[in-house]
Amino acid sequence: MNISDPKITTGGLPASRKIYVDGLLNEDVRVPMREISVHPTAAEPPLPVYDSSGPYTDPDVRTDINQGLPPLRRKWIEARGDVETYAGRASRPEDNGFAQGERLTPQFPVKQPPRRAKAGKAVTQLAYARAGIITPEMEFVAIRENQQQETAAEERSGNDWGASIPDHVTPEFVRQEIAAGRAIIPANINHPEAEPMIIGRNFLVKINANMGTSAVTSSMEEEVDKMIWAIRWGADTVMDLSTGRNIHNTREWIIRNAPVPIGTVPIYQALEKVNGIAEDLTWEIFRDTLIEQAEQGVDYFTIHAGVRLHMVPMTVNRVTGIVSRGGSIMAKWCLHHHKESFLYKHFADICDICRAYDVSFSLGDGLRPGSIADANDEAQFAELETLGELTKIAWDRDCQVMIEGPGHVAMHKIKENMDKQLECCHEAAFYTLGPLTTDIAPGYDHITSGIGAAMIGWFGCAMLCYVTPKEHLGLPDRDDVKTGVITYKIAAHAADLAKGLPGAQRRDDALSRARFEFRWEDQFNLSLDPETARDFHDQTLPKQAHKVAHFCSMCGPKFCSMRISHDIRASARKEGMEAMAAKFREGGDLYLPVGDEVE
Amino acid sequence: MNISDPKITTGGLPASRKIYVDGLLNEDVRVPMREISVHPTAAEPPLPVYDSSGPYTDPDVRTDINQGLPPLRRKWIEARGDVETYAGRASRPEDNGFAQGERLTPQFPVKQPPRRAKAGKAVTQLAYARAGIITPEMEFVAIRENQQQETAAEERSGNDWGASIPDHVTPEFVRQEIAAGRAIIPANINHPEAEPMIIGRNFLVKINANMGTSAVTSSMEEEVDKMIWAIRWGADTVMDLSTGRNIHNTREWIIRNAPVPIGTVPIYQALEKVNGIAEDLTWEIFRDTLIEQAEQGVDYFTIHAGVRLHMVPMTVNRVTGIVSRGGSIMAKWCLHHHKESFLYKHFADICDICRAYDVSFSLGDGLRPGSIADANDEAQFAELETLGELTKIAWDRDCQVMIEGPGHVAMHKIKENMDKQLECCHEAAFYTLGPLTTDIAPGYDHITSGIGAAMIGWFGCAMLCYVTPKEHLGLPDRDDVKTGVITYKIAAHAADLAKGLPGAQRRDDALSRARFEFRWEDQFNLSLDPETARDFHDQTLPKQAHKVAHFCSMCGPKFCSMRISHDIRASARKEGMEAMAAKFREGGDLYLPVGDEVE
Repeated sequence: MNISDPKITTGGLPASRKIYVDGLLNEDVRVPMREISVHPTAAEPPLPVYDSSGPYTDPDVRTDINQGLPPLRRKWIEARGDVETYAGRASRPEDNGFAQGERLTPQFPVKQPPRRAKAGKAVTQLAYARAGIITPEMEFVAIRENQQQETAAEERSGNDWGASIPDHVTPEFVRQEIAAGRAIIPANINHPEAEPMIIGRNFLVKINANMGTSAVTSSMEEEVDKMIWAIRWGADTVMDLSTGRNIHNTREWIIRNAPVPIGTVPIYQALEKVNGIAEDLTWEIFRDTLIEQAEQGVDYFTIHAGVRLHMVPMTVNRVTGIVSRGGSIMAKWCLHHHKESFLYKHFADICDICRAYDVSFSLGDGLRPGSIADANDEAQFAELETLGELTKIAWDRDCQVMIEGPGHVAMHKIKENMDKQLECCHEAAFYTLGPLTTDIAPGYDHITSGIGAAMIGWFGCAMLCYVTPKEHLGLPDRDDVKTGVITYKIAAHAADLAKGLPGAQRRDDALSRARFEFRWEDQFNLSLDPETARDFHDQTLPKQAHKVAHFCSMCGPKFCSMRISHDIRASARKEGMEAMAAKFREGGDLYLPVGDEVE
Repeated sequence: MNISDPKITTGGLPASRKIYVDGLLNEDVRVPMREISVHPTAAEPPLPVYDSSGPYTDPDVRTDINQGLPPLRRKWIEARGDVETYAGRASRPEDNGFAQGERLTPQFPVKQPPRRAKAGKAVTQLAYARAGIITPEMEFVAIRENQQQETAAEERSGNDWGASIPDHVTPEFVRQEIAAGRAIIPANINHPEAEPMIIGRNFLVKINANMGTSAVTSSMEEEVDKMIWAIRWGADTVMDLSTGRNIHNTREWIIRNAPVPIGTVPIYQALEKVNGIAEDLTWEIFRDTLIEQAEQGVDYFTIHAGVRLHMVPMTVNRVTGIVSRGGSIMAKWCLHHHKESFLYKHFADICDICRAYDVSFSLGDGLRPGSIADANDEAQFAELETLGELTKIAWDRDCQVMIEGPGHVAMHKIKENMDKQLECCHEAAFYTLGPLTTDIAPGYDHITSGIGAAMIGWFGCAMLCYVTPKEHLGLPDRDDVKTGVITYKIAAHAADLAKGLPGAQRRDDALSRARFEFRWEDQFNLSLDPETARDFHDQTLPKQAHKVAHFCSMCGPKFCSMRISHDIRASARKEGMEAMAAKFREGGDLYLPVGDEVE
């Protein structure tokens, strides 16, 4: 069944043009970027910026969510000759929570048979990297990371805390980073629609946006819209955390229309299949759910295999116990059965599934702290050590791995999280939720966590999972999604600047020049959210004439410091500033003792 | 002329009671606090929190902005026997920009003669502190800082970067910190309405909210309302940055109704008096403006005396030149006259004025960076060294001093700002604007700067000047003021936690306990903004029954991790968790190699 007239937001951003940069190694690598042009008086070329929004912001591409996106990676996947199509798992009523009739979300209209690795083959980017192969995906992300920057020798002033950030990202560098396990390209062979992107400490800091239906509220169409909305503002990956009914069909719509990697927490759907009774979960149900999702094209799985039976008692005296949904489900299962977690025991089996589709691991931190009081405690770090063990097991089986991190952590305890993660998990990419730096501001947890996210991003965290203003209170709507994404783009960019990533400061400089030269339109267009910037300006100075005014409403025409700066610069040019400066430095009436002269 | 039916927001916050804690040294010291009570099932006493909102949130006090607040400090000031009343400066038409008739903001209805120090007397808190006197103001702030916390031996886990934070703040400790110049109590003798508060590295981090009319927009009544609104949400001081006409009369209304210290930038008004022509400014006009404002009761003056002639050339190659209004005015004056700044030359004279009223200095950073590109440059640090010189001069004359700081600074350059300030300015209190950690998000600069503010607060900055979402774009309205204040309360509190201030974590813990125990109302009431927290919750689960629900809309009833944690805790209690933990730790079927067992 087709969705007629879906409410999604498409079209370019102001003063922006979609460009595609061709690969050199692979002729059908075409890397999308956004070029923001500025006013001719600036005499500056357009600024290319990283663009995760997919074809939806290209006015030359007609998109239709009933058709899904074109499978840009299919040729690359097939050319490797190591995958086969097959009938795939038959869908079952429990996949959608037994929803029927009008309550059943319609199936996505187009059905393709799934692909998997041929027997004995590892089809992961890690396997290729180790074999010395530079895949088209690797070339794609190399071009993407550079953002057309050419000045390799640019001054770099950051502190990268021991990372190894190159002046220029080459495809070979990407290959090496993946081979070393320091970075991943989440790229399920059944999600060929996705534009490759990389998550690793030596690359641009990425952000993830969560969404998903719940038993209480929201529909498939809303979630597809939220996904497209989130990437419009810069989400690099999206996690579909749907619960309730219709999980399978909703996910299919999301994946087929997603140009970014999609992550899930498969235990959520498995739990729905046993009617929400954690102790009824079995390895067989979980395994079947993994295959169901891998066939659909989920790019990374959060797996809470680090929550082990002996750790559960460590959480009993916490202020907020276990706050991870997956973690609490597994803890309950372990206690009820008095057995070790089936995720831990079957971790090698899970790896075999992930390897056959190239589903990346996002090893879940089921015992992350849910409050400032519980940060960096025994339970949290015990689990982190287990995640390090599991990382090695996954790597042994050619699986790509990132590690999830907290949570709620006061500022002075954030760096310890990063340092321990690098040490325990052998430099696997880190992916944190915030962290929130205080518990006292529900309604503003995008901000409490944006502070922590910026800091841990600087320290080396590769991807930041956004937190919206609704965190702890309700489900995010469209506005919340946008606020969460923009807040996390700020955090990620602040981290890129502080790490000294080459070229990171170009956009700041371009916007600051626009600000100094009163190019109001350029200032709006270069910002992360041109609509809001323009709207705020227009609230006090709505007239078009004010967009060329050499002042703003904050100070009014008489008081503009920037205008006075221009006057100073102009008079300095006239008089020869260098000569003037030299004269002043030599002495004259300067350096008089304070108070010596009265005019 | 009285303002009838002024639109100001008064009344208590939810579940809150105003309490007053009596002094032990001074019988009329009564320190206001807010006690937030929680549901009886919690079996917890009410939580006392710092409260800067003044009598407006005490339902037992009738306030009238036409009368102003009661002069709570007058008795203390008079008891010291070192001040005199006098006729005061006659007001002049230029004080209000020659506004007349309907365009003239009415005078505040009550007129009191000003006070000043008797000849030869220094009436500053610094002078008293050095003389070994513990003033009532000092006792007041000591009680206020402790927030009724009694557990001195509490565990403290922060990193205070070399500060000297005591377990318990005594009046004598306050005196010592003021005597050492490390802290100030901004307390003009002509602003007896203000409740004393302290700004210093070894105390709670404070925040300032800016407001003020401009030539383009806003009225006196709006500004008084904004001031009362800002302190309702936690602003510790307010700066009146009015420009345009009616500056004098607007300020009088603000000060008479302000229970917090009021700061100004006197050069703004002086410039209005010379019709906006910077080069027409003179020492005489500036001096007269200082006296005008000191007589009204301004508690601290931003003085840009650190911008010196020889520094101006250092700013010429900057991306954004000089962005401080005061700085650019002085730079222009210096260049035009080819003379050293009259603020620098007459700094000792300015000190004499400040000493006679106890106006604190806020030494302005006129050359602060206005973009990431300009951070920590030669101009900025040259000025900082001069501010250190001026600090000593002010201290020699018994004046209280704090130092203003930037601005726009990427994260890796923030700590250098704090370290250099401590070194150059001899540990005088630091007061920064943000800093903004990136330039690319106009519309969200409360967030770009909240990140930097939290960090520099942690590193030792004593007061954080808020930035609202309208920064760079327009004048803040009521909503922007609230957003700015809450964002900065978050930053300040995150800093207090990270510094390990005793008791700072009590509110986080109380709120987290409420969260874990599904006490939704308590969670709202303990938050920085109960209205928004409640509203966000109600958007998805509006029914009253949901406020006692053991789940929320994020996960729905089946999936609540917190509920599962409770189940775990309950079963642990039943079985004896310690015994269970021991059994698991001893071995049994744990620590099996991964993948060894298939169920």
